[in-house]
Amino acid sequence: MFFHRQELQFDARPEKPDAIFARRMQEVLGGQYGEITVAMQYGFQAWNAHIPGKYRDLLYGIGAEEFGHVEMLAIMIAQLLEKAPAEQSEAAAKSDPVLGAVIGGMDVQAAIVAGAGARPVDSNGNPWQGSYVTASGNLLADFTANANAEMQGRVQVARIYNMTDDKGVRDMLSFLLARDTMHQNQWIRAAQELREEGVEDLPVPSNFPLSNEAREHAYKYINFSDGAAAAEGSWASGPTPDGKGEFTYLDGPDTSVPMPPPTQPDPRFYGTDAKPNIIDKAEGVIRDKL
Amino acid sequence: MFFHRQELQFDARPEKPDAIFARRMQEVLGGQYGEITVAMQYGFQAWNAHIPGKYRDLLYGIGAEEFGHVEMLAIMIAQLLEKAPAEQSEAAAKSDPVLGAVIGGMDVQAAIVAGAGARPVDSNGNPWQGSYVTASGNLLADFTANANAEMQGRVQVARIYNMTDDKGVRDMLSFLLARDTMHQNQWIRAAQELREEGVEDLPVPSNFPLSNEAREHAYKYINFSDGAAAAEGSWASGPTPDGKGEFTYLDGPDTSVPMPPPTQPDPRFYGTDAKPNIIDKAEGVIRDKL
Amino acid sequence: MFFHRQELQFDARPEKPDAIFARRMQEVLGGQYGEITVAMQYGFQAWNAHIPGKYRDLLYGIGAEEFGHVEMLAIMIAQLLEKAPAEQSEAAAKSDPVLGAVIGGMDVQAAIVAGAGARPVDSNGNPWQGSYVTASGNLLADFTANANAEMQGRVQVARIYNMTDDKGVRDMLSFLLARDTMHQNQWIRAAQELREEGVEDLPVPSNFPLSNEAREHAYKYINFSDGAAAAEGSWASGPTPDGKGEFTYLDGPDTSVPMPPPTQPDPRFYGTDAKPNIIDKAEGVIRDKL
Amino acid sequence: MFFHRQELQFDARPEKPDAIFARRMQEVLGGQYGEITVAMQYGFQAWNAHIPGKYRDLLYGIGAEEFGHVEMLAIMIAQLLEKAPAEQSEAAAKSDPVLGAVIGGMDVQAAIVAGAGARPVDSNGNPWQGSYVTASGNLLADFTANANAEMQGRVQVARIYNMTDDKGVRDMLSFLLARDTMHQNQWIRAAQELREEGVEDLPVPSNFPLSNEAREHAYKYINFSDGAAAAEGSWASGPTPDGKGEFTYLDGPDTSVPMPPPTQPDPRFYGTDAKPNIIDKAEGVIRDKL
Amino acid sequence: MFFHRQELQFDARPEKPDAIFARRMQEVLGGQYGEITVAMQYGFQAWNAHIPGKYRDLLYGIGAEEFGHVEMLAIMIAQLLEKAPAEQSEAAAKSDPVLGAVIGGMDVQAAIVAGAGARPVDSNGNPWQGSYVTASGNLLADFTANANAEMQGRVQVARIYNMTDDKGVRDMLSFLLARDTMHQNQWIRAAQELREEGVEDLPVPSNFPLSNEAREHAYKYINFSDGAAAAEGSWASGPTPDGKGEFTYLDGPDTSVPMPPPTQPDPRFYGTDAKPNIIDKAEGVIRDKL
Amino acid sequence: MFFHRQELQFDARPEKPDAIFARRMQEVLGGQYGEITVAMQYGFQAWNAHIPGKYRDLLYGIGAEEFGHVEMLAIMIAQLLEKAPAEQSEAAAKSDPVLGAVIGGMDVQAAIVAGAGARPVDSNGNPWQGSYVTASGNLLADFTANANAEMQGRVQVARIYNMTDDKGVRDMLSFLLARDTMHQNQWIRAAQELREEGVEDLPVPSNFPLSNEAREHAYKYINFSDGAAAAEGSWASGPTPDGKGEFTYLDGPDTSVPMPPPTQPDPRFYGTDAKPNIIDKAEGVIRDKL
Repeated sequence: MFFHRQELQFDARPEKPDAIFARRMQEVLGGQYGEITVAMQYGFQAWNAHIPGKYRDLLYGIGAEEFGHVEMLAIMIAQLLEKAPAEQSEAAAKSDPVLGAVIGGMDVQAAIVAGAGARPVDSNGNPWQGSYVTASGNLLADFTANANAEMQGRVQVARIYNMTDDKGVRDMLSFLLARDTMHQNQWIRAAQELREEGVEDLPVPSNFPLSNEAREHAYKYINFSDGAAAAEGSWASGPTPDGKGEFTYLDGPDTSVPMPPPTQPDPRFYGTDAKPNIIDKAEGVIRDKL
Repeated sequence: MFFHRQELQFDARPEKPDAIFARRMQEVLGGQYGEITVAMQYGFQAWNAHIPGKYRDLLYGIGAEEFGHVEMLAIMIAQLLEKAPAEQSEAAAKSDPVLGAVIGGMDVQAAIVAGAGARPVDSNGNPWQGSYVTASGNLLADFTANANAEMQGRVQVARIYNMTDDKGVRDMLSFLLARDTMHQNQWIRAAQELREEGVEDLPVPSNFPLSNEAREHAYKYINFSDGAAAAEGSWASGPTPDGKGEFTYLDGPDTSVPMPPPTQPDPRFYGTDAKPNIIDKAEGVIRDKL
Repeated sequence: MFFHRQELQFDARPEKPDAIFARRMQEVLGGQYGEITVAMQYGFQAWNAHIPGKYRDLLYGIGAEEFGHVEMLAIMIAQLLEKAPAEQSEAAAKSDPVLGAVIGGMDVQAAIVAGAGARPVDSNGNPWQGSYVTASGNLLADFTANANAEMQGRVQVARIYNMTDDKGVRDMLSFLLARDTMHQNQWIRAAQELREEGVEDLPVPSNFPLSNEAREHAYKYINFSDGAAAAEGSWASGPTPDGKGEFTYLDGPDTSVPMPPPTQPDPRFYGTDAKPNIIDKAEGVIRDKL
Repeated sequence: MFFHRQELQFDARPEKPDAIFARRMQEVLGGQYGEITVAMQYGFQAWNAHIPGKYRDLLYGIGAEEFGHVEMLAIMIAQLLEKAPAEQSEAAAKSDPVLGAVIGGMDVQAAIVAGAGARPVDSNGNPWQGSYVTASGNLLADFTANANAEMQGRVQVARIYNMTDDKGVRDMLSFLLARDTMHQNQWIRAAQELREEGVEDLPVPSNFPLSNEAREHAYKYINFSDGAAAAEGSWASGPTPDGKGEFTYLDGPDTSVPMPPPTQPDPRFYGTDAKPNIIDKAEGVIRDKL
Repeated sequence: MFFHRQELQFDARPEKPDAIFARRMQEVLGGQYGEITVAMQYGFQAWNAHIPGKYRDLLYGIGAEEFGHVEMLAIMIAQLLEKAPAEQSEAAAKSDPVLGAVIGGMDVQAAIVAGAGARPVDSNGNPWQGSYVTASGNLLADFTANANAEMQGRVQVARIYNMTDDKGVRDMLSFLLARDTMHQNQWIRAAQELREEGVEDLPVPSNFPLSNEAREHAYKYINFSDGAAAAEGSWASGPTPDGKGEFTYLDGPDTSVPMPPPTQPDPRFYGTDAKPNIIDKAEGVIRDKL
Repeated sequence: MFFHRQELQFDARPEKPDAIFARRMQEVLGGQYGEITVAMQYGFQAWNAHIPGKYRDLLYGIGAEEFGHVEMLAIMIAQLLEKAPAEQSEAAAKSDPVLGAVIGGMDVQAAIVAGAGARPVDSNGNPWQGSYVTASGNLLADFTANANAEMQGRVQVARIYNMTDDKGVRDMLSFLLARDTMHQNQWIRAAQELREEGVEDLPVPSNFPLSNEAREHAYKYINFSDGAAAAEGSWASGPTPDGKGEFTYLDGPDTSVPMPPPTQPDPRFYGTDAKPNIIDKAEGVIRDKL
């Protein structure tokens, strides 16, 4: 169960409205790596978790914080839109360059659809979607997904930090940046702990029998481009992070097989076929092919 | 430039067609973490790279391999669909339970749209989409995204490995599993190398001035749920992976501010407003509010 | 069957082109609550209707009108785009602020994709989609959906009315506003008539046996936030609109159960599991678990 | 801020797993009218609200409950998937009709992507999307949207109630049905209260000046189909629900204007044009047309 | 304006319901190349047309027919769904193989969302979307798009024709197949007429000055694969269809340039950069770089 | 297999950065008819091909070239974005009209998400999607799809050619225009060759028995609009392109049937039904209806 308190974790008040910046802020609310994504992601990972205890509590504990960040950003965006212009014609833009800039730079649906309100969309107006969420049930994979989400998220917040001079906005972003720093560190540490405790290991999934994998291809860097510098990296020689092999470097594939012949599906799919098509005009039984 | 050779890196021939399994295999071709995703992701990361040399060569070198894996999977799927049934009615399903099972388990569009062919979609028929790609220009974030993609991808390949007994299919999956093992190791190692060389560091982005972040909130675990076990994790005390702080644990937020008052945008957005709406019936100038 | 007449229900000619406003008008053509939505929605509701007579005739009668409104808006948008600029570079924008404003404010795909034409998209260029349509087969639910669509639509038309001073555009919008007024009234009245005639009633669906619902929870307002003012509303005490109960107010949930334990699916899904993973290396029969 | 408690509002335990039904339940979790939609919708309406007090408290109070329902459904779905089969080939389906039925009826991504877990998608695997949310800032429109959402939602829950015999599942659905009954009643009552208090009225938006609308077209039923029965409805004669007019009935449009002539945009859009195309080969200035 | 008549162009009555086949039929209603696509496509091409007369009349004349086909298919699908089962659990499927087949083969949302009704989606439940529509304003390009749409559409109808034995369904499909034959012929003929009349020509757009194109690369087949057989085709030598050149064949590219160096954007985007990042901690003016 | 060479087929260097134009160029990279579409489309057509030899080699040969064009455009876009502004607030836009124009005209996600990089999206930021791809297995249909794609693509490149004066950009576009000219000619010629060789013919699919189609409706132009000019076209009389009929012209449909009666699905779908709803309160067996 979730309980709501009509307070915010941190102050979310701009010094002044700024409809152009409101659109930028939509990215970190409703974008691929915005707050809706992490809130929902941690939620689904917790609900699908197969083990109780500290890892699941971690997911619950942070997930609820992120729903609060969704709210914080939505509230901030609504205030940034408070002076969004109700006039948006070519004539208006031509007669007033400042208005023209606002019209060009803001999200037009923030005005028409939401009446100067926040929306569950990114900075280009693409609706947030469930396919942004990663929750595989494998915690080492998922914590790595979480670390990535917090990194991408912090990069984006850092970028929009410089897009404004508004002290109120920057203060709130400073807070979110710090929380992203925490969450990056936390997911990286939690991923390490999974390995230290032997709960999960590399390669993910570690409980898949390695005997089922073609081990002879498991540690070869195979170069399919003509740049030679990748051979200089520590991924081209030396021990592998999973502790189970040694990297080697190949300048091109060492395996190759001819392509299988083209397929010949049921002629009633009416594909183009080299040999004379024997169509069963009476729609007779080709079922025996199945 | 890309050059194509009409050979495959590994054999991609099933022992026998299997339209039901073909649908499962679409996930690792055209799903969120399928081969199209990693091929395009490594491509865009390379094209957007700001530094030449080993890291960009790495992206080019692996990206082209992944395009070959896209092809390998598509070729395999087409063969698995070679006996896909052309009859798919209720009558047919009722009279033949085996056919009924195939009809229920295969991708209906593989038949109607592609005539027993592979498609750039996932196992539920959702089209592949560009929003699966991550390419931020920050290499530590992006390599972490890549590590995650290879982990999720290997988890999925491991799952579908057990969904079939076909030796031809399993052989090819064994090869892909091994390549995923390599790529997991490689991106983890490359991410470490970025840090070792000081090219990039935690927290990402490391070149954002820490003085701009509210440092006092950067290492606190704040528990928004009522599970206490998260306090036992190494993310709740001890040094942080970025080497710049110490984790602390808080059982709930230590900051709180009242919500800002509701916004009052231009009345011509016709939102619902508590005070009497002063509508300018003649559409007079409310522009001075802007 | 639909028959087309090369006339419009109302004049759709702008005084002058305005590419910026053309983009705004796309919202009420191809947006979530644009004319394509209502045309398709009334069509699908009619085609799926289970009763002949006045309600279905109503859907057919209005649906066809809405397809004409789609046309009217598309024709208007094409004219608004008639002077859309063919030059859209930074140099052009920098040398001519008016052009810069047009470039920033118009839909770039209207130029590149449609050659100055209307498109089945909203004002942010999101393609119209079938998931905007509601047609459940339950007429009281669907007429409520229709009333909502006409309300949201009229709010949006009212908003864009103020975004232009063009008399030709405003005249057409005045007409559409009036039709939205009609359609709001009509769906509300039709919903009432369904209840008056006993065809359908609250709660929807009224033909679901109430004995199957946990009636003791059917009229309680349960407050999951800390704002107390909702207790003052008529939804917190007094008779309910369905005529079958009395509202009561609870300051928080009066029921609570512990979470079920985490799930333990087949180990071959390779999720992360607390107990030792017993992987059947030979992929032996775990099927007996099913 | 949101706070999480590791308890559920109602018991969410099935008597036995049922992967087929798990897919049906995804509709009311992640579909157009599922719990994610209403949770997010009430949230955004609250965050964008322009008035404090009982209406906003109502949105906050119910919104947080709905996030708890999201969790309840996700937890239930994970349990229903607990015995989801790890084998899903044609051979398996053919040898075991029961397994074949499960393979055909369950969501394939629940296995491959989530490892037998819930996902933010509908029963066909379409990801939940932000465009399901309605939050216009006009409360009468939005409360009508909410009433519709609760009606559609209850219709869907009623439908899936009959798709299972599992007592545990039915008990939880009985609870959700009761809450939908409450929420239908509540939004209808709240919409009435808005009108009774004069905060908002019909036609929505009521604060748009009626003088700007072509009033002579505001109460006419115009029949664009050839069914005559719609004339019998109370929407074809008598007073209108907004209290401002009388319905009239027209058997076809009473207005008609000729189509405007085709447009002639800049020739550099290379559309097909009847008159000789005068292409400025030197790309000379056609800008003066703008 | 569109007018509706409550009659169908052809009989649309199945001999018996068939929920499995209903799902297949959704493809030709709401798929990429279904009837909604062509109806909307011809509509938008007409509304955006720059020339009056026979070509635009053609678009209007056929477009309205296609809206009637949308209706015909929706009506047929609703009848095919008339016996769709209300029970869809694992227990039901296990106890009744016939029911199990229906559950696995039908569209689950047809039941839960539409209550046994048609929907604007394809056979995998993907909602129809505006991006299926092509309307560029260039008639030769667009008529070629139309010819393609009618070809793909007829291929799909031919495929589903064989998926059923129902005489009523097959009769209607026979009619639709014939109309697709007409429309294929018609668009091909109309495209020819555009060229014969000199209204438009190859290469499209023909009114773009050829002097602006790098003519030396305009007729070379450049082989980027290692298959040699493409040299045998008439696209590798001989006159070109546009009558303006001769095909030649190259076994690989005859041009090549080195890649440009990596980009160095503003450091405040926090990308990963080889040279020491000079971050302006005081966020000083880097604007002079612009 | 694909092999990558770190060279481009043609020079891709702008004279100067231009973030506004970069957005326009995204359309021909990641739009419906951009280079990603044709690269993937030719790939899937090849992988699904049922015949070896020249047609499949053609698809492989061109497909790999198009992947190189994807790269060329991405590299160009990254350079055009090299001076994209890191400041994007209302204050900045107001104080500097040139900056304001850039902010309004560029893709905001190019900055926030990609850090001044290219992305797999169109010029409005819609992600590229797999549903842009056509690969039916019928080569005449698919080659027509390809001809259309190259036509639409060349129209779009021609349009953006005029949107810039940058010589570097225009040079590359000149090259792409020439390749589009080649590819238009090539697909048209290949489609002709399919017919000349009798591999495939009109109407597509030609191997579907014409006896299954209602031939009497196969060559009639049926006018559903009131424009008479379509009768003047060669599609209204004379021989048909498939060589199998004669066009005729009808001013309206010559067939008509009454609508089937409304459907009566299982009452447990809770649709609205005219006759008294007989709900089986005990959820008794209505299964015998199936």
